[in-house]
Amino acid sequence: MAEFMTETKQCPAGAPLAGDPPAPADRPRPAREGGPPPDGHEATAVLDRARGEVDPELRAAVESLPGAMRRIARYHFGWEHADGTPTAGNAGKAIRPALVLTAASALGGSGARTAALRAAAAVELVHNFTLLHDDVMDRDTSRRHRPTAWTVFGVPDAILAGDALQALALRLLAVDPHPASRAAAARLADCVVELCEGQHADTAMEERAPDEVRLDDVLVMAEAKTGALIGCACALGGLYAGADDEAVAALDAFGRQAGLAFQLIDDVIGIWGDPERTGKPAGADLAVRKKSLPVVAALTSGTPAAAELAELYGRPYDEKDLERTAQAVERAGGRDWAQVQAADRMSRAMQELVRAVPDPEAAGGLLALAEFVTRRSS
Amino acid sequence: MAEFMTETKQCPAGAPLAGDPPAPADRPRPAREGGPPPDGHEATAVLDRARGEVDPELRAAVESLPGAMRRIARYHFGWEHADGTPTAGNAGKAIRPALVLTAASALGGSGARTAALRAAAAVELVHNFTLLHDDVMDRDTSRRHRPTAWTVFGVPDAILAGDALQALALRLLAVDPHPASRAAAARLADCVVELCEGQHADTAMEERAPDEVRLDDVLVMAEAKTGALIGCACALGGLYAGADDEAVAALDAFGRQAGLAFQLIDDVIGIWGDPERTGKPAGADLAVRKKSLPVVAALTSGTPAAAELAELYGRPYDEKDLERTAQAVERAGGRDWAQVQAADRMSRAMQELVRAVPDPEAAGGLLALAEFVTRRSS
Repeated sequence: MAEFMTETKQCPAGAPLAGDPPAPADRPRPAREGGPPPDGHEATAVLDRARGEVDPELRAAVESLPGAMRRIARYHFGWEHADGTPTAGNAGKAIRPALVLTAASALGGSGARTAALRAAAAVELVHNFTLLHDDVMDRDTSRRHRPTAWTVFGVPDAILAGDALQALALRLLAVDPHPASRAAAARLADCVVELCEGQHADTAMEERAPDEVRLDDVLVMAEAKTGALIGCACALGGLYAGADDEAVAALDAFGRQAGLAFQLIDDVIGIWGDPERTGKPAGADLAVRKKSLPVVAALTSGTPAAAELAELYGRPYDEKDLERTAQAVERAGGRDWAQVQAADRMSRAMQELVRAVPDPEAAGGLLALAEFVTRRSS
Repeated sequence: MAEFMTETKQCPAGAPLAGDPPAPADRPRPAREGGPPPDGHEATAVLDRARGEVDPELRAAVESLPGAMRRIARYHFGWEHADGTPTAGNAGKAIRPALVLTAASALGGSGARTAALRAAAAVELVHNFTLLHDDVMDRDTSRRHRPTAWTVFGVPDAILAGDALQALALRLLAVDPHPASRAAAARLADCVVELCEGQHADTAMEERAPDEVRLDDVLVMAEAKTGALIGCACALGGLYAGADDEAVAALDAFGRQAGLAFQLIDDVIGIWGDPERTGKPAGADLAVRKKSLPVVAALTSGTPAAAELAELYGRPYDEKDLERTAQAVERAGGRDWAQVQAADRMSRAMQELVRAVPDPEAAGGLLALAEFVTRRSS
């Protein structure tokens, strides 16, 4: 249930980090015959197209809700202000629906792409249901530069609107006559369960002492929280294209690995990101003692800097320790580890993509999206 | 999302109320050829049988959850203590699954009954998802004589476990190969949306001033909160029996009217119920200034007692005013209204039942269940 390319946390594409930028040479770039490596422009075009296609489906679904649920959903999606007046438009990037549609067209052409529209909307509804609930649980007050729904409508209404969006998502698939809709619904429901377990693990992790957190656990948690829905989105596209089980599994694995790469980079930005770019104070994750991936890698490194970091994390936050804390993570190898891991995950994602979509031309859109969501550190 | 026959609020069948018992003569009892009117014993047998059939399905579904979600669900269902040790068994009555199975066999015999098992488990999962979330929203600390899940596992985990149970419910239907499962999933998802809107309306109502609440609004809210899922359970049974649209609609209406009758009687018990039977202090609903159906009927009666009640409800609770408040509701006609309404709703339920299941013998089980859940005041 992590934020994935939501605007609050997002750097503009290619934004440099504060301090030394990580070496972009780590990032494997699979060769694409017949064209240059994807750039941000290509990804933006892929996203814009998908957004244009899925929006009517998504809006129709939300408009089918009764009064109060509809009002909260419209606000949450950024279509309306709290008083019900229309906004200039501030919705998220809709990466997940774009992955559904792009995977469908990669393996099944434009027919599959059109057939997968409801599934794309369903994935976006599930994503937004989890955001509504996560914001309640984490007491986050801001999302996409606006007050979160629970701060505007109260906790009960935010919980209810999330519940309604989950129901709406699975309803879209239940009424979809496409032969893949049944398997898609089962897969999406399984994904929700995994997201819940991942969010639980994250909450539980934050309550543990720094020396009680294992790196493997954090990786598993990050895959469940962030990778699972990205993988599910890709897999659903494959299902609507009539792909075989192996290709669907490879699409799922592609999305999971790309999602993990994203999370690793997001965690690096949470420590060393440029406040002017991220819109968050420097070292925001350190200030709240977040056990992000680089921090846990540092804590479990067995180095002298690990002990120093554990001691710092045991204290209440003090701004004057911030720089030292970030340096301890770096000296303990947390930053390097996260960057190497991110590159490794992207490399695995590319291998899965080749398995799922052997034709490089057809795989271009998915490649562009994966690059887009993970290139913020390059 | 109301509690409906949960054990905290339940009186034993036929329990007398404190004070004057309402006149049982109000209750219409449709003639049943070939047998006496149903008694509590018949309903108990219907419930026990259904519970025995649906339990393995329900447990298998819950066991499929990952670790933390499974643990919370097992606790919530009353199968385990908080420390994971087994209980002596303290689950709810499973009225809703019994309605699914009884409606299915009424119209489709034992084949339909067996086919509807997954749907019955799905309805029970949805019911329990709403209980988990309602308890968080209402800050209720006790359910079925045990601490609520959020008091044991924390608010985030109770929200997550509810989310996971909703997903599990819709997953059960997604993997059900029965031709009715698609329509059942759509109907159940629609029902969840209605439950959410009903719970929102209830919360909003409680925040309004006593003179700003309209009786019609409370009735609509009660139907959404309590009637919708009872109706949906009956309708799903009809779908699995291959019933036509008209019979399915009549089953839905039967359940909604019986659910409303239940809510009216539950609200009467919430004011005049015998604390020894209800396990709650006398006048519990009045103490929390609940705008229950008899209270709103009294407030909107235009009588002198209505003005007195509004004045009393405007004050902070004081135990010495309790008796006078209950009397004001009664003098303003709130108690009589609720009893006449309950009888009227049961009468309508019976009419719908005759439409849905014309054979009185086949309708016996549904009749027994409807009588069982509403006879607590007789």
